[in-house]
Amino acid sequence: MSRYRATVEYDGTDYHGFQIQVGLPTIQEELERALTRITGQEVRVNGAGRTDTGVHALGQVIAFDVRWRHSPAELQRALNAVLPTAIAVQELAEAAEGFHPRFDAVSRTYRYTVLNQPWRSPLAARFAHHVATPLNVAAMNEAAAVLIGRHDFAAFGQPPQGENTVRQVWRAGWQREGVWCRFDIEADAFLRGMVRSLVGTMLLVGQGLLSVAEFAAVLASGERGRAAPPAPPCGLCLMEVKYGR
Amino acid sequence: MSRYRATVEYDGTDYHGFQIQVGLPTIQEELERALTRITGQEVRVNGAGRTDTGVHALGQVIAFDVRWRHSPAELQRALNAVLPTAIAVQELAEAAEGFHPRFDAVSRTYRYTVLNQPWRSPLAARFAHHVATPLNVAAMNEAAAVLIGRHDFAAFGQPPQGENTVRQVWRAGWQREGVWCRFDIEADAFLRGMVRSLVGTMLLVGQGLLSVAEFAAVLASGERGRAAPPAPPCGLCLMEVKYGR
Repeated sequence: MSRYRATVEYDGTDYHGFQIQVGLPTIQEELERALTRITGQEVRVNGAGRTDTGVHALGQVIAFDVRWRHSPAELQRALNAVLPTAIAVQELAEAAEGFHPRFDAVSRTYRYTVLNQPWRSPLAARFAHHVATPLNVAAMNEAAAVLIGRHDFAAFGQPPQGENTVRQVWRAGWQREGVWCRFDIEADAFLRGMVRSLVGTMLLVGQGLLSVAEFAAVLASGERGRAAPPAPPCGLCLMEVKYGR
Repeated sequence: MSRYRATVEYDGTDYHGFQIQVGLPTIQEELERALTRITGQEVRVNGAGRTDTGVHALGQVIAFDVRWRHSPAELQRALNAVLPTAIAVQELAEAAEGFHPRFDAVSRTYRYTVLNQPWRSPLAARFAHHVATPLNVAAMNEAAAVLIGRHDFAAFGQPPQGENTVRQVWRAGWQREGVWCRFDIEADAFLRGMVRSLVGTMLLVGQGLLSVAEFAAVLASGERGRAAPPAPPCGLCLMEVKYGR
């Protein structure tokens, strides 16, 4: 029995998030089914982050224990051959014993993509949120700067059971490139729905409906009801998970 | 009754091409249905190019006659509100009387996108063809250069009824940008399946399975059986249609 670590990319559109839920299609279930199909063993897959329904990943990290006689490259090839089109393994290697993708992670990076043009774009619809009104990215960036540091993010999401709502944000900022506005945020960890809730509220700032000071006040309040509704999941992608070792 | 001209973007994945076919979902049918829903009139839509099943468009051009009392911008907004997510109107304006998007077009530009990396990518799967073996883009570019000019393209496609197989190619070339290889081709018009058949054959050149001289010989032969099978439709996109007026 060896432990493996893999980087997984997925189009989350048709999935109810990463984590297994009875009777609903999930990324974890597809990965476990693929491993069972290849090895004949019952395999439990751990993921670094439980992405929500409809959220994508370029760099989800998973780990699992399995008996496998061939090379990691052959396991990766076999997995990609049986996984659905929406899921693929980009890297696979043997992991240190006891490696856990969630507990060992030191940071996660998410990207939220907004298409800012008058008309919606069918080719972008799966991976970007369309905002028709012009966005003030400079103001959104001022709001993003408020997030950097150690804060209580209770206003923007719910913690997993038994955890607190304080998180350390290392990096947060918007970039405009033509019609595309991209928000990148790196933190030690995230509350449930946190990035989409932050983006939904920053979009109000970008539309001049909320000042940067008001945005800072929402954060400081810790009151869930003061944040805007979350931005839709299609725009969100788990880009990278970093490990200390 | 006024004539309108519009630029339409679509994700062709779930459609049987642009042109109406009884019992199958097509882009033309969706556009005509949307116009009828908005105006209550039976409207016939003409398109610049009949894209095949699964082929996308950023710049398909259409025209239609309709009675509409409001502005073109309002017609565009109404259309985008009722069209399915996979289709959207990017521009709409009154057209000259008698304007025909197919017969008046002086050139069409298509792009074919290849993802050239060992593993398939779920986020790119809808809009790019995955090729795992490394491609020699310089050789593919030499093959593309052979296409420029006035040639009989009988080896690479079928003409519409009653037309000949000679076409004028203004521009044809590959560009690599990291893992992406993009082929852009502009011609006065295209035979059915021509771009995908050209790409399928150039991919053999890129993999060292066919020399540039052999590629030129396939073109010169005019024999349909000598070209490679067409590359899959997901990678193809109608980018632009140009008009003299």
